[in-house]
Amino acid sequence: MAWTPLVLDLLGVFFFAVSGSLLAVRRHFDVVGSLLLGTCVGLGGGILRDVLLATGVPRAFDSPVYLVPPVLAAVIVYFFAHAVQRFHDLLITFDAGGMALFSVTGTLVALDAGMNPTAAAILGVVTAVGGGVIRDVVANDVPQIFRARGLYAIPALLGAGLTSLTSSVDWYNLATGSAIAAVVFTLRMVSLRYHWGAPPAGGHHDAPHPTPTP
Amino acid sequence: MAWTPLVLDLLGVFFFAVSGSLLAVRRHFDVVGSLLLGTCVGLGGGILRDVLLATGVPRAFDSPVYLVPPVLAAVIVYFFAHAVQRFHDLLITFDAGGMALFSVTGTLVALDAGMNPTAAAILGVVTAVGGGVIRDVVANDVPQIFRARGLYAIPALLGAGLTSLTSSVDWYNLATGSAIAAVVFTLRMVSLRYHWGAPPAGGHHDAPHPTPTP
Amino acid sequence: MAWTPLVLDLLGVFFFAVSGSLLAVRRHFDVVGSLLLGTCVGLGGGILRDVLLATGVPRAFDSPVYLVPPVLAAVIVYFFAHAVQRFHDLLITFDAGGMALFSVTGTLVALDAGMNPTAAAILGVVTAVGGGVIRDVVANDVPQIFRARGLYAIPALLGAGLTSLTSSVDWYNLATGSAIAAVVFTLRMVSLRYHWGAPPAGGHHDAPHPTPTP
Repeated sequence: MAWTPLVLDLLGVFFFAVSGSLLAVRRHFDVVGSLLLGTCVGLGGGILRDVLLATGVPRAFDSPVYLVPPVLAAVIVYFFAHAVQRFHDLLITFDAGGMALFSVTGTLVALDAGMNPTAAAILGVVTAVGGGVIRDVVANDVPQIFRARGLYAIPALLGAGLTSLTSSVDWYNLATGSAIAAVVFTLRMVSLRYHWGAPPAGGHHDAPHPTPTP
Repeated sequence: MAWTPLVLDLLGVFFFAVSGSLLAVRRHFDVVGSLLLGTCVGLGGGILRDVLLATGVPRAFDSPVYLVPPVLAAVIVYFFAHAVQRFHDLLITFDAGGMALFSVTGTLVALDAGMNPTAAAILGVVTAVGGGVIRDVVANDVPQIFRARGLYAIPALLGAGLTSLTSSVDWYNLATGSAIAAVVFTLRMVSLRYHWGAPPAGGHHDAPHPTPTP
Repeated sequence: MAWTPLVLDLLGVFFFAVSGSLLAVRRHFDVVGSLLLGTCVGLGGGILRDVLLATGVPRAFDSPVYLVPPVLAAVIVYFFAHAVQRFHDLLITFDAGGMALFSVTGTLVALDAGMNPTAAAILGVVTAVGGGVIRDVVANDVPQIFRARGLYAIPALLGAGLTSLTSSVDWYNLATGSAIAAVVFTLRMVSLRYHWGAPPAGGHHDAPHPTPTP
């Protein structure tokens, strides 16, 4: 990976690692648990992608630079967690940032490994949402991606799809990549703000005439 | 994989995907969450098997046809979930169908990859139960396979063992494969109906003289 | 792997498998669930390591001898669980034994596969804690490593680091390996006894003036 995608990738690791360390604070883990959870969340999506790509040892184990963002995240959260009141919104914001960046870089890595555009976009989504799923499963929550507050998978799929598309027509560069990530992030945050959401899994038939609870 | 095992495999993906989408309804996920959970459940066991077999990119990423059954499952559950009352039994039935088919096809894929009959049967069991474990862990349940309502692992092991055996003696074909899956499915369902189960993990010594609760 | 590390490795599998089977008793799983959970816990860390090392089929699937310790563990727990009153401490003790041994053998396997000393130590930690994380996630608990009762990750990291170090200077042998595992185990148990722990993830600022609850 050239250095520009690497920068976006490390920024994504950092955002996800902060979300993990913030969850560690909320769950009263200690600072070692915070570092570990941040590392799992930050690196989990990329490791999952590399395992599925079957291209050898995941890059996070080969490049020690990937360990820097989680350490930074745990330190920052340790010193500044007390200064922020609204952990929950902050966690969701950092999670959205990581998801947006990984939907771009994850797709790029998969394309680099020779996957076709469709499979690359799917692996981009896996990268984008994998770390967050690991975070929530380990912390005994139902993963955000399934809980339907705002849109989550749709922005991730959009980012991965656009990255795959711009790469196919050779328009991908740091500027378009950053723009795609910005669009994904904005869509996620706006959907939260305005409570956008897909219809329920079982359709709207479940309770056509809801009985008022007395 | 020749086309006949492929048909059984896709049918298994579909059954597991329906079980995932039904769980999504019960957990009030939206329709995107339903599609995602169905996809994880339907493809999870096979992806896990392919990762363990270390034969390169899992087939679900190479063959887009594997994405059809989860889409179909999410659509069907979206439109017809309201028509069925007893989600729980339905979920368990579709899960049993997926498990039965995957115990056969998972073992075949592992044999094709050159594993010895014992290892192939174990990987068949991993395929058969992997998707369901992912479904229940993600949805914050203790996996069905551990919860001991009826027999679960034993039918899976039987199916994988019989497939490995019939393949070794060159008796495996679509008919025997379907028959094995039917036996596994029937054993699972009958064991549920008649509350068969293995003895408790700690033996029967735990409470030799149960104190009646007043 | 030469036979001496194999002995330590199988002992580690056994310890972790006992911890899994004990948890199965506490959760009222049946004896099949006990065997399965013990197998997942005992073999999970090593399988995860082998998948990340990308060295082909995980050794647990190639060497049937790895299936012996989980069977033994399930049988022993089945017959003797009633004789022990304090499951919780026993589970933690066996977990500590498995973790200590795997921090040594996991690092050795990674070094054998050609990883650099730092990456090998990290994979040693993954091996040491992976099985326990799988156990707790599957049984719907927050993993011990995050829950901060005593030290957990620090002893694991110490064991992996010392193994990597002694191997680099060619001092590793069965005696030093066993000594490292003993130190790790002792540090884990002593930290539990004296309630040692790292500071909280959010620093000590969270509640500088705790309001007394009336």
